Amino acid sequence: MNHPDAPARRLLLNCDMGESFGPWTMGMDEQVMPLVDMANVACGFHASDPVTMTRTVALAKAAGTRIGAHPSYPDLAGFGRRSMQCSHDEIVALVQYQTGALAGICQSRGMALSYVKPHGALYNDMMRDPAVLRAVLAGVAGYDRTLPLMVLASADNRQVEEIAAEAGVTLMFEAFADRAYGSDGLLLPRSEPGAVYSNPASILAQSLSLAHDGVVSARDGSLMKLMPDTLCVHGDNPASVAVIQQIRTALDQLYGES
Amino acid sequence: MNHPDAPARRLLLNCDMGESFGPWTMGMDEQVMPLVDMANVACGFHASDPVTMTRTVALAKAAGTRIGAHPSYPDLAGFGRRSMQCSHDEIVALVQYQTGALAGICQSRGMALSYVKPHGALYNDMMRDPAVLRAVLAGVAGYDRTLPLMVLASADNRQVEEIAAEAGVTLMFEAFADRAYGSDGLLLPRSEPGAVYSNPASILAQSLSLAHDGVVSARDGSLMKLMPDTLCVHGDNPASVAVIQQIRTALDQLYGES
Amino acid sequence: MNHPDAPARRLLLNCDMGESFGPWTMGMDEQVMPLVDMANVACGFHASDPVTMTRTVALAKAAGTRIGAHPSYPDLAGFGRRSMQCSHDEIVALVQYQTGALAGICQSRGMALSYVKPHGALYNDMMRDPAVLRAVLAGVAGYDRTLPLMVLASADNRQVEEIAAEAGVTLMFEAFADRAYGSDGLLLPRSEPGAVYSNPASILAQSLSLAHDGVVSARDGSLMKLMPDTLCVHGDNPASVAVIQQIRTALDQLYGES
Amino acid sequence: MNHPDAPARRLLLNCDMGESFGPWTMGMDEQVMPLVDMANVACGFHASDPVTMTRTVALAKAAGTRIGAHPSYPDLAGFGRRSMQCSHDEIVALVQYQTGALAGICQSRGMALSYVKPHGALYNDMMRDPAVLRAVLAGVAGYDRTLPLMVLASADNRQVEEIAAEAGVTLMFEAFADRAYGSDGLLLPRSEPGAVYSNPASILAQSLSLAHDGVVSARDGSLMKLMPDTLCVHGDNPASVAVIQQIRTALDQLYGES
Repeated sequence: MNHPDAPARRLLLNCDMGESFGPWTMGMDEQVMPLVDMANVACGFHASDPVTMTRTVALAKAAGTRIGAHPSYPDLAGFGRRSMQCSHDEIVALVQYQTGALAGICQSRGMALSYVKPHGALYNDMMRDPAVLRAVLAGVAGYDRTLPLMVLASADNRQVEEIAAEAGVTLMFEAFADRAYGSDGLLLPRSEPGAVYSNPASILAQSLSLAHDGVVSARDGSLMKLMPDTLCVHGDNPASVAVIQQIRTALDQLYGES
Repeated sequence: MNHPDAPARRLLLNCDMGESFGPWTMGMDEQVMPLVDMANVACGFHASDPVTMTRTVALAKAAGTRIGAHPSYPDLAGFGRRSMQCSHDEIVALVQYQTGALAGICQSRGMALSYVKPHGALYNDMMRDPAVLRAVLAGVAGYDRTLPLMVLASADNRQVEEIAAEAGVTLMFEAFADRAYGSDGLLLPRSEPGAVYSNPASILAQSLSLAHDGVVSARDGSLMKLMPDTLCVHGDNPASVAVIQQIRTALDQLYGES
Repeated sequence: MNHPDAPARRLLLNCDMGESFGPWTMGMDEQVMPLVDMANVACGFHASDPVTMTRTVALAKAAGTRIGAHPSYPDLAGFGRRSMQCSHDEIVALVQYQTGALAGICQSRGMALSYVKPHGALYNDMMRDPAVLRAVLAGVAGYDRTLPLMVLASADNRQVEEIAAEAGVTLMFEAFADRAYGSDGLLLPRSEPGAVYSNPASILAQSLSLAHDGVVSARDGSLMKLMPDTLCVHGDNPASVAVIQQIRTALDQLYGES
Repeated sequence: MNHPDAPARRLLLNCDMGESFGPWTMGMDEQVMPLVDMANVACGFHASDPVTMTRTVALAKAAGTRIGAHPSYPDLAGFGRRSMQCSHDEIVALVQYQTGALAGICQSRGMALSYVKPHGALYNDMMRDPAVLRAVLAGVAGYDRTLPLMVLASADNRQVEEIAAEAGVTLMFEAFADRAYGSDGLLLPRSEPGAVYSNPASILAQSLSLAHDGVVSARDGSLMKLMPDTLCVHGDNPASVAVIQQIRTALDQLYGES
C-alpha cells in the first residue's frame, strides 16, 4: 500500500552495472544490485564480456532488478567515453548486436530485457545530435518497438519526444542524483568545478527533491521541473554505495514500503 | 512433388557466410546465398561485425536461406582457427552471447535463427573433446533447447548422440563435399596431401554419393555410411561457386525440383 | 645520371601497404612494393597484425623500399576511418606504441623506420585540428626527433610548418595522384562527385604535373603550386597497379633512370 | 659495501607491472615499483594500453627499476592465461611486435629494455613445449640477441639451456616466492591445495632460503637447489605489498645495503 502522501509517480533508481572486464573488476555490483530498480548492463563494447554478463544477469535475477541493455561505441580501452564518428547504419547495427547479445544471455537465465540506455559518448552524442538519436531509435525500433529508450530529462523534452514519436519508440526520462544542472536545464560539463557532487548530503537532497516534486535546483538557484521517470545513481565505492542505500531507504519510506 | 526415385531424406546444403570484417571482404556471399539452404553466419568473434551481419541476414532473407549462428573462440586475427583453452563457463557464455547477438540482428529483419554450428577450432575441439561438446550443448540448451546443433557425421555417432541427449539438444549431422575421409570415418587432417579436394569432379561425385546413398568412399576404397542431414560446401572463389551451382542443380533434379 | 631536364627535386612515390589483417587480404603489396619508394606500413590498429607486418617488412626489404610507420586510431572494424575523440596523451602514446611495434618488426629484419605518416581519420584530424597535429608531433618527437612526419601539402603550409618547428620535427609534404583539389588548395571531400579520379589518364596527368612543376590544376582551372616531396598512389586492384607502373616509368624517364 | 656474509650472487626481485587496462586498475604499481629491481611490463595483448604503458615506464624510470617486456598471447578478456595454438611464426611475430611497442614507449622516456619475460599461458607453454620455447627464443634473438630471456628455474635446467644456446640467447632464471614446489623441482599446479602461499611468513621464509642458499624445500621436505637469478613477487593488495617490503628489507640487509 502506498503512503498517503506518496507522489503518483514512482521514481525508479537505475545504475550502470556489469562494467567489469575479464580479470578487471569495476563497481560493487553485489552490493548495489539489491538497492536499485534497473540495471544498465554493459554488453561487451565498452566493458564486460560474456562471462561477466552472465554473472551480472544472475545478480539482477536474484535481486529482482530489471535489466536494460547499455550499448556503446566499440571502444574498450576508452570505456566508450570517446565520441566516434559512426554512420547511421553502424549505430543501428551496433545497438541491435549488443542488445541481442545481452538478450541472449538474459534468455539463458529466464530473464528478458526491459529497456535500452546507450552508454557514455553514444549517450551524449544522442542527446546533442538528432542524427545520432534517430540512429539509436532506429536500432531499438527495429529490434523491438516495445522496449523503451532511456534519455536525459531536460527542462524541455519536446524535440526528443518528437523524434522518438516518429520512430514509434517510448521514452523513459532520467535525472542524475550526483550532477549539477545549469539554468538551461542541462548537466554542467564534468570539466566545470562542482559539476559532480561528492557530498552525500547534496546527492541525497537532489534525489529527494526529484522524488517529491520532480524538481532540481540549478546552479543559479532557479528551480527546474524535470519530472524524471528514473534517477541515475553510481556505486563504485563503499561511500557511494552507502548513499544509494540512503536514497533507497528514503524512497521506500516515501512510497510506503518497508 | 518429389521425383519418384528421390531419397526419403533430403540433403541440405550449408555454407559459412558473412565472414567479411569491416573493410575486408571474404567469400562470394551474394552468389552463394541463393544456392544453399543454410547459412552459417559469423557472429563477430572470428569474423564479421554488426554491419556485415546485418547485410548477411538481409541476403539470407532475400534468398529464403535458413540462418544458423556460427559462434567461435574470440580470435579475429586467427579467424577462430586457433584452439583456446576456455573453461566450461566461458564456452557456455560465448555461445550464448554470439547466438543472441545474431538473433538480435535477425529479429530486426523479421528473421529467426534455425540452428547453431560452432566455427573452426571450437568445432574441432567439440568433436574430439566431450567436455567442450558438453559446454557447447549447455550453451545451446540454455539459450533455446529447440535449436539444433550441427555436428560432424562420422561412421559411429553414438557417443555424440548420448551427450546431446543428456543436454536435451537435437543434432544435425553434416558431411563435407570437398574433404577426404579416412577409413575410421573421420576427416583426413588438412595437413595430409589430398585431404582437401580442389577437383570439381571429385567434389561433385562425393556430394552425389552422399545425396543418393548417404555414403562416402574412404581413401582406402571402403564405403562408409554417414547419412548426413546436410552437406557443407565452400564458395570463396568463382570456381568453387560454380561447383556449388552444379551440386545445387544435381540435388534439385534428384529431388524433382526445377 | 639525371636527365638534363630533370627537376632538382625528385618526387618519391608513397603507398599504404600491409593493410591485410589475419585471414583477410587487402591490396596488391607484392606487385606494388617494387614500384614505390616509400611504404606506409599499417601497425595493427586499423589493419595488419604481427605476422602481416613481418611479411610486409620482408617485402619492403627485398624491394629496397623505405618503411614508414602508419599509425591510426584504435579501430579495426572501422579501418581507422572514424574520427575518435582522443586526448593529447592518448594520441602521443598510440603513435609511440605503433611506431615502436613496427620498429621492432623492422629491427628483427635488419631494417629501420624512415618516417611516420598517420592514417585515415587521424591524418585528417591532424590536418584540420592543430591540437591533434601537436599531439602527433609530440609522439614523433618523443620517439625519435630525426624521423620526419608526412603531412598533406597545401597551397599554404605555413601554419603546419610553424607547429612542426616548435616540436623540432621535420616535415615531408605529400600530394595525391588520384584526388581532385579545390581552389583553396585542399582536397575535395570524397563525398563530392569527381573527388576521386578513377580515370588512369587523369591520375597520370596530375602525377606528371606534380613531378615536373610541383603543380596541380584545381577544379576551377586555377593552378596551385604544392611542391610536394612525395606523391601518394593507391594499388588495390590490377587497374590501379597498372597506373602506378605508368607513373613509375614516367618518373624514371624524367629522372634519367632506366 | 656488501655485508661480509653476503652471498656472491645477488637475488633480484621481479614483479608483473602495468597490468591495468583502460579504465580498469590492477596492481599497486606505485607502491611496488620502488621495492623491486625488475618490472615485467605488460605490452597490450593481455593487459595495458599505450597510455598505461607510458605511465608504467615513467614509474619505473622514477624508481630506477629495470624494464622487461612481458609479451602474451593476444587475449585481453582471458588475461593471456588461456593457451592458444599459435604457430612458430605467429609467436615470433607477437614477441617482436610487443617487445618493439614497449621499447618505443621506453625510448620516448629515455629508457631501454633490459630483458623479456613471456606472460601467463605463453610462459607456461614455453616451459613445457620446446617448440614454443624455440619460437619465443627466435623472437627475442631476431629482435636483439643481447636481451636475456627470463625462464623458470628448475632442479635441472639443461634442456632449456641447450635450446637457448642454439638460439644464442642468454637466460635469466627465476624462482617464485609464493608458490609451492613439488619434489620434481617444478611448481605445483595452482589447482592443488596449498600451491599458492598466502601466509606472509611462508613467503618470506622461501624468499630468504632462495636468497641465502638458492634452495627451496619441496612439499615432501626434500631440498632443491634452484640458484635463481631473480625472485618473482606479487603485489596486488596491501598485504602482499607489505610482504614485498619485508623481502626487500631482508635482502637489503643481506647484501649490506640500507
